[in-house]
Amino acid sequence: MQKIRCVLVCVGTELLRGKVNTHGSHLARRLASIGLELHEEVTVRDELPAITRAIRQALGDAQVVVVTGGLGPTFDDLTREAAAKATGKPLEFSQSLLKGIKAKFRHARFRMPAANARQADVLQGARVIPNDVGTAPGQILFMDPQVLILLPGPPRELYPMLEHSVLPALRKAFPAYPRAESHLHFAGVPESVVDHKIRPVIARFGGDAVQFTILARLGLVDLDVYVSDKSASGARGTLRRLEHSIRTRLGGAWYGSNADYPLEKVVRDRFCKKRATLAVAESCTGGLLAGRITDVPGSSDYFVEGRVTYANAAKMRVLGVPAELIRRFGAVSRPVAQAMAKGIRQQAGTTWGAGVTGIAGPGGGTPGKPVGLVFIALASQKRAFCRRYQFTGDREAIRERTVVAALDLLRRVN
Amino acid sequence: MQKIRCVLVCVGTELLRGKVNTHGSHLARRLASIGLELHEEVTVRDELPAITRAIRQALGDAQVVVVTGGLGPTFDDLTREAAAKATGKPLEFSQSLLKGIKAKFRHARFRMPAANARQADVLQGARVIPNDVGTAPGQILFMDPQVLILLPGPPRELYPMLEHSVLPALRKAFPAYPRAESHLHFAGVPESVVDHKIRPVIARFGGDAVQFTILARLGLVDLDVYVSDKSASGARGTLRRLEHSIRTRLGGAWYGSNADYPLEKVVRDRFCKKRATLAVAESCTGGLLAGRITDVPGSSDYFVEGRVTYANAAKMRVLGVPAELIRRFGAVSRPVAQAMAKGIRQQAGTTWGAGVTGIAGPGGGTPGKPVGLVFIALASQKRAFCRRYQFTGDREAIRERTVVAALDLLRRVN
Repeated sequence: MQKIRCVLVCVGTELLRGKVNTHGSHLARRLASIGLELHEEVTVRDELPAITRAIRQALGDAQVVVVTGGLGPTFDDLTREAAAKATGKPLEFSQSLLKGIKAKFRHARFRMPAANARQADVLQGARVIPNDVGTAPGQILFMDPQVLILLPGPPRELYPMLEHSVLPALRKAFPAYPRAESHLHFAGVPESVVDHKIRPVIARFGGDAVQFTILARLGLVDLDVYVSDKSASGARGTLRRLEHSIRTRLGGAWYGSNADYPLEKVVRDRFCKKRATLAVAESCTGGLLAGRITDVPGSSDYFVEGRVTYANAAKMRVLGVPAELIRRFGAVSRPVAQAMAKGIRQQAGTTWGAGVTGIAGPGGGTPGKPVGLVFIALASQKRAFCRRYQFTGDREAIRERTVVAALDLLRRVN
Repeated sequence: MQKIRCVLVCVGTELLRGKVNTHGSHLARRLASIGLELHEEVTVRDELPAITRAIRQALGDAQVVVVTGGLGPTFDDLTREAAAKATGKPLEFSQSLLKGIKAKFRHARFRMPAANARQADVLQGARVIPNDVGTAPGQILFMDPQVLILLPGPPRELYPMLEHSVLPALRKAFPAYPRAESHLHFAGVPESVVDHKIRPVIARFGGDAVQFTILARLGLVDLDVYVSDKSASGARGTLRRLEHSIRTRLGGAWYGSNADYPLEKVVRDRFCKKRATLAVAESCTGGLLAGRITDVPGSSDYFVEGRVTYANAAKMRVLGVPAELIRRFGAVSRPVAQAMAKGIRQQAGTTWGAGVTGIAGPGGGTPGKPVGLVFIALASQKRAFCRRYQFTGDREAIRERTVVAALDLLRRVN
């Protein structure tokens, strides 16, 4: 099988001034899904010579060149001009594109600034990639044997355009051996443990036919596995056996094998299947748990109510947590978490209640109760339990890990 | 003033297989602290030709070249060899370095594998950068006018070596012109409008002495401005005048000029200054507004309580929203948003109450009430008002824009 070289060029001075660039990570994983590999990534400033050189060099190296960013309306959005210079194709103004951009502004009740007209410039011969979210259209230019793709920088615009337009076009242009893929998700287990446990399994199935990526993020680990074979059924068969071995080795930590199956969807599905309902009372996560639960459509089928009882007074007034309990054990304690879970459940009349209390920092820690200490309690009519966690990281990381841990407990009770 | 160009070369196939690369972000911010700027970043695989070419090209472009990764002991750690090829300096074996590496293994009660001896190879003329955490030493080679720096990839090794050895050496080698910088934040105004309005201002101060970047993100716009001058007071003076002109042109949209001053901190500061308190009732944002408010330490000083009334029944039971109102106008309506704001304020006994209701999608929209329609109401004892929004984007974007719009309203009432 021929190897197709892909290069990513990221445009944006802000990416060289502290912003974390996740385009390479995302693109690598999505390219792998159609049997392509990312070979190199380069990030340049919003400067015409730098962008032009990067695109020109990438076109000299690779068959697939993806350029992100620099498609906005402002003077420092120069990707269109650089691509024209690098390819020798002039920019042509598209009246129909301009009409579409104007309509978007009308819809948002703004008048289109004159500068946005530049977004209707298209490389001669390029196909326009529609952008349903923002105003910057993408472009895809086939220059046999190469493909040049221009996409906007913001992920919420880039990702759907990649998915719905770019990947299908690349799959058609570079047909790969039949492949089967699986996306395994794990919670409550460190990345290094997953890595350690799957290596011998992968080695057993081994060779060029199996590709995989591991991505860890605050309490969650995603494992993407791709198997290619001369026949589709062969690839599927190998993948099935491989996935079975991995799941066996990782036991309860595995929670799903779907491309888009976040923990909050798992929780929703398990609650809905059991016709169970839920209410949550949050302290240190301050609404983020409810926010995550309601991130998925259909959450209103089981999620009844959330309460953010940030002040102690609110914990007592709203949830009926006895003042005595807070005085004796402190607001961050097992008994208070349990009283919160019980209180919210009774008030909302739900199957389950959850109570979350902890010290997210940076202040508020003591030697006995350090920053990162978190209690998560769950209560139903028949069962009640509470888990203690000691998380590391900054305030944001601790809050995020707490949300993930709570979702992990919620999926396990149903 | 001469501009010192810095380029980062990241070596590691794993960085092109899904792992998020944060080296660029970290290095950019640390370089800025000594007046240097990152100009370009390139990530290459563990392949000798690719690494060599990247280093050679970087040395042709920049005075400071930082290479991370590929300093381990295994066969695919090729950065030392690539650097030797790119610079024409041979590798010399350091007996004293070998001794140090052996000692580290002894300390960990392991016998040094033979492969690790490669880590004692040093570019001719380079200074060794000690690594207190791992076995891979770094190297710094001064080749007037350039500096080539080799560092290991793992952040817990890289970061302290950068801090204790590399930054002090660079500060000495490239004393910077005095600089002043400002980070201006705007809300409730599109990126293109900010750009359009500041252009003439920047042009007026213009020239090489002023650098800036605009970064937009779901309802928020950040403008970073850097001014350099022969004297620190000159730079500060120019920056002050520039910032004043920009703020004047953008009026109420400006909300702060601090490197780390998100909208939720502004809201906290304004509420605390007025000794005002707040409670929020959320429907479509499902807890995200409370989550964002409590993202900043000290929010408990003014934020009393949040309620996520996702089901209509909860809106009535918990907030006292009349059933009649919901029946007549629908849950997503001005009267219901106002009743939610009033209800939560009365229950929590706060200065202000906020009510948020809307259609985040993807389902639930109608021609009369499309996806993205949101009402945000604020109520105090003396004032009450409600704003209607029509947001675009997917569920996540609509929820995020709603949170930002609510914070923007909250900062404006105090």
